[in-house]
Amino acid sequence: MSVHFKKLALIGIGLIGSSIALAARRHGLVDTIAIATRREETLDEARALALGDIYTLDAAEAVHGADLVILCAPVGAYEALAKAIAPALEPGAILSDVGSVKAHVHKVVGPYVPPNVAFIPGHPLAGTEHSGPGAGFAELFSGRWCVLTPGPEVPQEQTDKLVGFWRAMGSNVECMDAAHHDMVLAITSHVPHLVAYNIVGTVADLEADTKSEVIKFSASGFRDFTRIAASDPVMWRDVFLTNRDAVLEMLGRFLEDLSVLQRAVRTGDGPALEEMFTRTRAIRRSIINAGQETAAADFGRPHEAVPKSEEQR
Amino acid sequence: MSVHFKKLALIGIGLIGSSIALAARRHGLVDTIAIATRREETLDEARALALGDIYTLDAAEAVHGADLVILCAPVGAYEALAKAIAPALEPGAILSDVGSVKAHVHKVVGPYVPPNVAFIPGHPLAGTEHSGPGAGFAELFSGRWCVLTPGPEVPQEQTDKLVGFWRAMGSNVECMDAAHHDMVLAITSHVPHLVAYNIVGTVADLEADTKSEVIKFSASGFRDFTRIAASDPVMWRDVFLTNRDAVLEMLGRFLEDLSVLQRAVRTGDGPALEEMFTRTRAIRRSIINAGQETAAADFGRPHEAVPKSEEQR
Repeated sequence: MSVHFKKLALIGIGLIGSSIALAARRHGLVDTIAIATRREETLDEARALALGDIYTLDAAEAVHGADLVILCAPVGAYEALAKAIAPALEPGAILSDVGSVKAHVHKVVGPYVPPNVAFIPGHPLAGTEHSGPGAGFAELFSGRWCVLTPGPEVPQEQTDKLVGFWRAMGSNVECMDAAHHDMVLAITSHVPHLVAYNIVGTVADLEADTKSEVIKFSASGFRDFTRIAASDPVMWRDVFLTNRDAVLEMLGRFLEDLSVLQRAVRTGDGPALEEMFTRTRAIRRSIINAGQETAAADFGRPHEAVPKSEEQR
Repeated sequence: MSVHFKKLALIGIGLIGSSIALAARRHGLVDTIAIATRREETLDEARALALGDIYTLDAAEAVHGADLVILCAPVGAYEALAKAIAPALEPGAILSDVGSVKAHVHKVVGPYVPPNVAFIPGHPLAGTEHSGPGAGFAELFSGRWCVLTPGPEVPQEQTDKLVGFWRAMGSNVECMDAAHHDMVLAITSHVPHLVAYNIVGTVADLEADTKSEVIKFSASGFRDFTRIAASDPVMWRDVFLTNRDAVLEMLGRFLEDLSVLQRAVRTGDGPALEEMFTRTRAIRRSIINAGQETAAADFGRPHEAVPKSEEQR
């Protein structure tokens, strides 16, 4: 099956949008790339990086004649964008997105999608803590998962074509129900980010002299949290505004468990602490066995600092 | 000043002990290395790796004639070890350790130390998630901090000599009060580890089908927590048993802050969320400016997967 598109319209060109532009171009998946942004400076930056062929501040103009449209803007902007582009969408086109939540996207975009357009929300599980058009690179999706959540009304061949597009950019692709996606991501991604942001915030409120030492000695665990908590603030704001129920459900479980651990610390319950710290190792082994991680010692430091023999253990 | 020791006794030979053995040898800091362990298998492993010159199951025998003794066992074993080795300590020797807590170490070991022995507890802020004699490598301390907490009774020249020993192995060294060390480490290291263990525990209790997907999609944040939560369970049990007050104080602040964030999620307070997620970026910039981290995109993945241009940003 061909995964080639005549015209790809990217609405928004941050880390993910620019990486799609570079990857689609490298793998010859599209003839023309149209880029629409809200802010003129972002558009200028995309043009300077030669990420596309057509540059416009008018999203409807970008989607005109496009057989693949991908929303790459913050999720909070989706509803207004959907309203604006709906009349310009081509019959037979695929409309997708890259947002971190999916049920909300179905809810706010779905009603605007014309019946002859295949609406297939998507979520590439890839990223770095950098943002903006200059942060993208063509290898971003290589070996990473991309989840698609097509509704039951979408023709299978359209879903297959979008699956092929992501596979051609190096992704592993899985289709699932939007609500299930949101629950799984709440615990794998949203709650970890909330917790990381929170602990960095706790440090930000410390007395000045303690804070400077926390920064100095950050390599002992805290540093890894600051990396996670350096991600794009607007994107994450929208994640928590739009996946509220699943996040609160998983955060509730997390807090229950943390109360148990807190009590074990307070009462000095050594066996309970050791049992907990041992049990969690099995999960990490599963992740390594699933090929989602290597066993190499790392802690977020450049590997040059680690001897070769260590890297390969 | 000479930082050379005639005989170094390492009581315990896990990741840190074996790394000290390799680094002290490489930099020519000691003539003889004696290694004592509790378990025969660990001793055999150390012998097979040729980490020392003398191997014994009797800690007192190892410290006999040693001018530097470093406890590298779990902190929970310190009191019994101190009692056992005290009569065998040489006049003029330095007794140190590598435990993650310091006030507790002063409390349980201090009373056994003869007056002619300089007791200088220490904490190298270095490690990987691997444990055991085979996990060590000579570069582990290079560019990392080592905190020493000598009591007021310790002669300055003895402290200077131990500072020189750690500097010769590549460490940056700072001396401070034991209680202050424990408070700073509670928030930079102990609470982050507790939180990481906790979220991995929450996942371990999920329904089986959701759990397998969490593992599959773990690259989206959760994976970094599992790395932190893969550290040695016994060491971490002892950390929480022995730095209880500082951990509960910092955990209390963390939970207060998390309640505020939880409420912002529940009420859909976008401005509060965005403000919080933006504020935390300043802390990360401070860490990068302090040379404790690079800005390279990472997320714990081997850097080969990231293009060179990206690494150097």
